[in-house]
Amino acid sequence: MHQPPVIALLTDFGLEDTFVGVMKGVIATICREARVIDLTHAIGPRNVRQAAFHLDRSSGYFPDGTIFVSVVDPGVGMATRRAIGVQAGPYRFIAPDNGLLTLIFERWPSVRCHELTNANYQFANPSATFHGRDIFSPAAAHLAVGVPLEAFGPAIDAAECMRMERWQNRPLGDEKGWAGEIIATDHFGNLITSLEAGMIADGGDWTVKAGNSAPLRIVRTYGEVKPGHPLAYIGSSGMVEIAIRNGNASAELGVGEGDAVEMCRAGSARPL
Amino acid sequence: MHQPPVIALLTDFGLEDTFVGVMKGVIATICREARVIDLTHAIGPRNVRQAAFHLDRSSGYFPDGTIFVSVVDPGVGMATRRAIGVQAGPYRFIAPDNGLLTLIFERWPSVRCHELTNANYQFANPSATFHGRDIFSPAAAHLAVGVPLEAFGPAIDAAECMRMERWQNRPLGDEKGWAGEIIATDHFGNLITSLEAGMIADGGDWTVKAGNSAPLRIVRTYGEVKPGHPLAYIGSSGMVEIAIRNGNASAELGVGEGDAVEMCRAGSARPL
Amino acid sequence: MHQPPVIALLTDFGLEDTFVGVMKGVIATICREARVIDLTHAIGPRNVRQAAFHLDRSSGYFPDGTIFVSVVDPGVGMATRRAIGVQAGPYRFIAPDNGLLTLIFERWPSVRCHELTNANYQFANPSATFHGRDIFSPAAAHLAVGVPLEAFGPAIDAAECMRMERWQNRPLGDEKGWAGEIIATDHFGNLITSLEAGMIADGGDWTVKAGNSAPLRIVRTYGEVKPGHPLAYIGSSGMVEIAIRNGNASAELGVGEGDAVEMCRAGSARPL
Repeated sequence: MHQPPVIALLTDFGLEDTFVGVMKGVIATICREARVIDLTHAIGPRNVRQAAFHLDRSSGYFPDGTIFVSVVDPGVGMATRRAIGVQAGPYRFIAPDNGLLTLIFERWPSVRCHELTNANYQFANPSATFHGRDIFSPAAAHLAVGVPLEAFGPAIDAAECMRMERWQNRPLGDEKGWAGEIIATDHFGNLITSLEAGMIADGGDWTVKAGNSAPLRIVRTYGEVKPGHPLAYIGSSGMVEIAIRNGNASAELGVGEGDAVEMCRAGSARPL
Repeated sequence: MHQPPVIALLTDFGLEDTFVGVMKGVIATICREARVIDLTHAIGPRNVRQAAFHLDRSSGYFPDGTIFVSVVDPGVGMATRRAIGVQAGPYRFIAPDNGLLTLIFERWPSVRCHELTNANYQFANPSATFHGRDIFSPAAAHLAVGVPLEAFGPAIDAAECMRMERWQNRPLGDEKGWAGEIIATDHFGNLITSLEAGMIADGGDWTVKAGNSAPLRIVRTYGEVKPGHPLAYIGSSGMVEIAIRNGNASAELGVGEGDAVEMCRAGSARPL
Repeated sequence: MHQPPVIALLTDFGLEDTFVGVMKGVIATICREARVIDLTHAIGPRNVRQAAFHLDRSSGYFPDGTIFVSVVDPGVGMATRRAIGVQAGPYRFIAPDNGLLTLIFERWPSVRCHELTNANYQFANPSATFHGRDIFSPAAAHLAVGVPLEAFGPAIDAAECMRMERWQNRPLGDEKGWAGEIIATDHFGNLITSLEAGMIADGGDWTVKAGNSAPLRIVRTYGEVKPGHPLAYIGSSGMVEIAIRNGNASAELGVGEGDAVEMCRAGSARPL
């Protein structure tokens, strides 16, 4: 059975303006049957790192063949910033070459990468400020109707593509645990850390501490602490998270993106 | 003619993160042709009552066969909170068993209800915090491709499902009218009350009062009062509402969810 | 190949409530196959002028045949406010007759216009406050399934339709330049002015000034100034815009909708 193509959008454009609606109009003009799905348009303005995180953690839940259009693009219109199309695993990614695909390159070491230069597949006289409309959306829609990636422009080596500055997890001395940082805050005020479930896969009891919280034992779900109390747990994206049950951890702990977090073996941390 | 299935989503997930986008990715993976419609994702965090209200008042505007996925789920991951699938009238509803379907059970007294336990129709190793992705979306998509409700798990009696605490309308003495409460505030600041159009269907003049407003005569539409003036009217959901023409009633009257409201026969209320 | 119809929505309803979701439910009930695209739902409450601007500047990016449903409707429910359907160029527009289509009428001088009066194509007993659901969405969906525009009601002369108060650009003396106003602020805080690219198409150097900014030379894109510095440029909608690179011009310059802006030939302005 013929399956209509899926195009997923991730931007920092917000929904106040018509930027996103216009991108969908452009896509529908070229590929009416595409299913367009909003991954999110609320990436912080110009926050390439946040975009990279969300794209990497979300893409695996989409069907094979999905085309991801990611536009967080502080360098839009500058001659030094390339537009790229990437085949990685079962997916294709359209994005500015500014580090946004860093984690995709890590996840799928063998990728094909092309610069988007072919004027046939972009708007004539593209604007200097809205390549989401003039270059990235037309590229995705042309891919969706079957134009092969190599038709969009010259092959480039993914190793030459920009990488973002990574968040750093560093081991604490004596195998006590890890130090990391808060990489995002979600709608509920839950704090998503850079610490990964795999770090504690060998079992044992661990505690997590950020801001003024006491060391929090890692539990399985919200219901294991009383309403109003903080907890740490493995979040749905596979990262360690901190929440307050029925509350807002970011607001109540005064902690946000970039702040430090530590995770220690329960035996090694001395609760204050 | 073959009609693609419709799946409607109502959550408290907001649109800042990729929660909703990921749910749509999961649905598209299982049922590419489904038409997915956002009912809203701005239910107040963990506000089951508000979700129940919006679901009940909105569902009738959707085509027969629509599958509603409602996820406002403070008990996610707890063993005591069941996931359920319900056939009610021409619709199917997927939700946590936490009272969210209270008004649906009232509206459609004869329903079929099944617990969602069959592991074939959910993710392996579901997370403890995001059943919207791991259990509810897969259930809806499998329903959409034709899996019958009884295949998802054992039949349960709807009478045993959780009910939310209802808002209470109580008659004022001497048939003077009704006391109720504000159950929601909309985007324009209009106040939606628990008082229903049917209460005043016998005609006559009625006034409504909340917070510091004078008793407001019920009119038909905004244009019947001067700009900046308050009014009461039967809103589009069939509930009595209070608004300020070209203004924000919630902000200007200092009234919000849970506050008291009274509706009196005009003859019985003494305008101050 | 059969192409499914496209319906684009533009409202001031926000996404907090179920207004937009319900409109899509109504459309799906009448025309399941329609592709519904959100242009935006964040028009300022009752801001007809802002809606007119966004509709006019966005519609050209949609495929021929698109049906635009625009609902910013402070006069909803008043007998004096007509509902209209308009064929203009390759598009059809459904809207209240309150000036929202002013710029569409200017752009497409030869249009066909009908009042929407035929009760067969709207809800029985439409509410007095939500014609988006009861009149405008059903009209769009019936158009989408092939009902001709003339079936909806009597032809009316577009010249008799309401026009909004236009923003005014006025020439400065001695051909020095133009005075205009800020007509919108976008998600990034960029200021969209009423001054159009065509005004400076003859070349030369121009500067733009709003609020406390120094006169800003018009550049091509953000990267041409240092981070944190203001710039003027031709925005993607063809209007002159003012931004702060990696910043928020509206907040940092203290300028917003309705404020004055001037654009001068570089030779004629004396930088302060």
